[in-house]
Amino acid sequence: MKRYEEIAEVIAADIRNGRLTPGSKLPSIRKIITQHGVSPATAFQAYYQLEQRGLVRARERSGYYVAGTAHPIPHEPARSATPRLTSKVDISELVFAVLSAAKDRNMVQFGSAFPSPRLFPLQRLAKSVTRTARFIDPWDTVASLPPGNAALRRQIELRYLALAAPQPVDEIVITTGALEALNLCLLAVAKPGDLVAIESPGFYAAGQALERLGMKAIEIPVHPSEGLDLAALADAMKRHPIKACWFMTTFQNPMGATMSEAAKRELVALLAKHDIPLIEDDVYAELYFGKHAPLPAKAFDTRGLVMHCGSFSKSLAPGYRIGWVAGGRFSERIERLKLMTTLSASVPAQVAIADYLQTGGYDKHLRKLRHALETQLTQLRTALSQHFPPDIRLSRPEGGYFLWVEFSDSFNALDLHRRAADAGISLAPGPIFSPSRQYRHCIRLNYGWPWTDAHTSAIRELGTLTC
Amino acid sequence: MKRYEEIAEVIAADIRNGRLTPGSKLPSIRKIITQHGVSPATAFQAYYQLEQRGLVRARERSGYYVAGTAHPIPHEPARSATPRLTSKVDISELVFAVLSAAKDRNMVQFGSAFPSPRLFPLQRLAKSVTRTARFIDPWDTVASLPPGNAALRRQIELRYLALAAPQPVDEIVITTGALEALNLCLLAVAKPGDLVAIESPGFYAAGQALERLGMKAIEIPVHPSEGLDLAALADAMKRHPIKACWFMTTFQNPMGATMSEAAKRELVALLAKHDIPLIEDDVYAELYFGKHAPLPAKAFDTRGLVMHCGSFSKSLAPGYRIGWVAGGRFSERIERLKLMTTLSASVPAQVAIADYLQTGGYDKHLRKLRHALETQLTQLRTALSQHFPPDIRLSRPEGGYFLWVEFSDSFNALDLHRRAADAGISLAPGPIFSPSRQYRHCIRLNYGWPWTDAHTSAIRELGTLTC
Repeated sequence: MKRYEEIAEVIAADIRNGRLTPGSKLPSIRKIITQHGVSPATAFQAYYQLEQRGLVRARERSGYYVAGTAHPIPHEPARSATPRLTSKVDISELVFAVLSAAKDRNMVQFGSAFPSPRLFPLQRLAKSVTRTARFIDPWDTVASLPPGNAALRRQIELRYLALAAPQPVDEIVITTGALEALNLCLLAVAKPGDLVAIESPGFYAAGQALERLGMKAIEIPVHPSEGLDLAALADAMKRHPIKACWFMTTFQNPMGATMSEAAKRELVALLAKHDIPLIEDDVYAELYFGKHAPLPAKAFDTRGLVMHCGSFSKSLAPGYRIGWVAGGRFSERIERLKLMTTLSASVPAQVAIADYLQTGGYDKHLRKLRHALETQLTQLRTALSQHFPPDIRLSRPEGGYFLWVEFSDSFNALDLHRRAADAGISLAPGPIFSPSRQYRHCIRLNYGWPWTDAHTSAIRELGTLTC
Repeated sequence: MKRYEEIAEVIAADIRNGRLTPGSKLPSIRKIITQHGVSPATAFQAYYQLEQRGLVRARERSGYYVAGTAHPIPHEPARSATPRLTSKVDISELVFAVLSAAKDRNMVQFGSAFPSPRLFPLQRLAKSVTRTARFIDPWDTVASLPPGNAALRRQIELRYLALAAPQPVDEIVITTGALEALNLCLLAVAKPGDLVAIESPGFYAAGQALERLGMKAIEIPVHPSEGLDLAALADAMKRHPIKACWFMTTFQNPMGATMSEAAKRELVALLAKHDIPLIEDDVYAELYFGKHAPLPAKAFDTRGLVMHCGSFSKSLAPGYRIGWVAGGRFSERIERLKLMTTLSASVPAQVAIADYLQTGGYDKHLRKLRHALETQLTQLRTALSQHFPPDIRLSRPEGGYFLWVEFSDSFNALDLHRRAADAGISLAPGPIFSPSRQYRHCIRLNYGWPWTDAHTSAIRELGTLTC
């Protein structure tokens, strides 16, 4: 990281965590020079980069300001109160309504689970597809059976190495996206009737999987910036026969929360103490706004208890359906379950992604993608502060592309969801993130789409509907 | 079909069903001319085509003979005796040993579940992959979510129309291969503890799925040429609370049996009477050796009880992992289960296959593929009649690429499997096709690979091991 990038990052972090509020004045160029001991060129470059990222605006003869108008920064949302035990999980039509809206080109996609496909290097990927399809070895169709294409697994192994969280390549199993990885992990460690700890609020697919397989859920509260409530988890582990956990420890969906490294260590120690496996959903791992990639809980796992699930769907190749799991002691069982359920991941997609990772400039693309998402977050926050009620609470994600909005207790997100859909705007209402249907006063907004006037209008429209 | 093709087909059918035995003399050209009222050129062309297919050999100044040496044609295998109820399904390591041998390039692949990848138009497919990848609409990654890519589903709809078994396009769901389709269908119609009727012998994945999901199996016997024992099924339906059936009605794996159209009608009537859904595995549908594609049971289903599962893996694009299900009244439930488990099938593979079906000459490729498989069947039967004990019984498949071999009762197929593996030859031992571990005296042989000297040597070696 260059010096000007470091300075820009310090300021960007202060904007994200709310120490610098929208509209407030930033240190002068002179101050940056003396404070950081850098040349004027470096100071200008730092601000130039922040401007490019949409975080900062220059005003002629006045200096630099945090983007957005001067509104008080909203508080963080509250966390849910106590673990809830749900004997039978009941997932409503609502999840499918939200998913199906994602296919409607005319909707403003604040409810979508996906970032805009236009943020991805589809043309460059097509080159890899073309090159590898033309010279495909017929034997590859067999050799790419689970655990999966060897070149692709090697590339994933290298990325774990670069992260300083090395994983044995023979524990890496390629899957049809991370969603399959998560489902196979669950099948590998729990059976019908078992109790599984999930997050509240949390990814609806976890609740759906438990419902489908006749398992029971215990909901563990999530704090909007600190992530999973470890004390609540420890208590639940003492009092209930929990067979497995399914958590997102980084850029949690829907809250955007990230557990600290210390908390992740503590989580892994807690798992080890009770010998409980963790299914770690880490699909937004590459979408961090800070200086460094956060380490997953898996990095602290010495006993093979953590199954770390990743994907290229959110960072490189949406629709290719290539994910993986570093399965620890469960990797062979997962590999066999894969063979029994969908046989293998699509071979042209596996070999094309392996080729791209070797030659395509993945890290350069990722830097662009992260900046785009961070800019869009600022744009969304700015629009919200202008058009939404002043008493809303907003999460402060450090990565990913979801913002969690909490209204006053009496607010009805299901009602807003319906009325927004009529106005051509999708959003994800809070109750879909909880099997016990909490969070009726919350919504999740997607900022994974390049900001347009339509987005500004949609937020204004939503603002009217919320009043 | 041209006149000479029709004549060739009449003779080919008589060879397949054993009316014409290996080594026996065929009617003279003159006889063909008078019998069928055709020109000499047409008669010659018929025999020329049969020679090309490896079914017939010309001997100079002597005429035409059925390929293979004059051995008595083996009897058909016996069918298993009575339905067996298996309260808990226990699938052994053996299935995985057989699957993993398929990845070993040095093995002679008589045990593989797949045909040789060299039989498929991978180069022509690569053209479709290249063309579609280059012009991919980013929105396709979202628009190809379940039920799946519209162009591909339209092409599948057209093939059902051409078969005279039309299916509503909105009931067609694209899946990650047929294996996923089968598993999703099972999830759609049964839950843990439910009793499901499967075939004996039958596809091991059915038993594995029941085991994984905590369901119970009842094994219904299969006759080697007539297919499923309908009387046994009717009786089982009366006596047990069967929740669903999972059957292959055409080119059944492992026996190769095909139910007649009348039997399929009767099966559908039986299902309707008890209101029991059928998961119809029809992955070998396109690999028929006769004049016409056999109709699936689905063709007679007027109540939406049959879920018809197909695939391109065995007929066009191995490794692409594109299958589908025409799900009848369960199609929406299946679509949702797909969304919840693997989200969607790989998009580059979906759009490439849709493009190939529109432009690639699928039917021409299929004619070549069918001829290749039929030729290879003859080559395998010939080698078996030369090198195997004379008292073996062989199935008489009319399509697909599996031959079922039954030895005397005392024979131990598991022992042969081990010793063959040591000699670099894979085969599928009978017990993997039955949750109750019957068929210890049977093996399944794959004739999906172009015949080479290595195959002849391997059959000779197996012959030695069986004596």
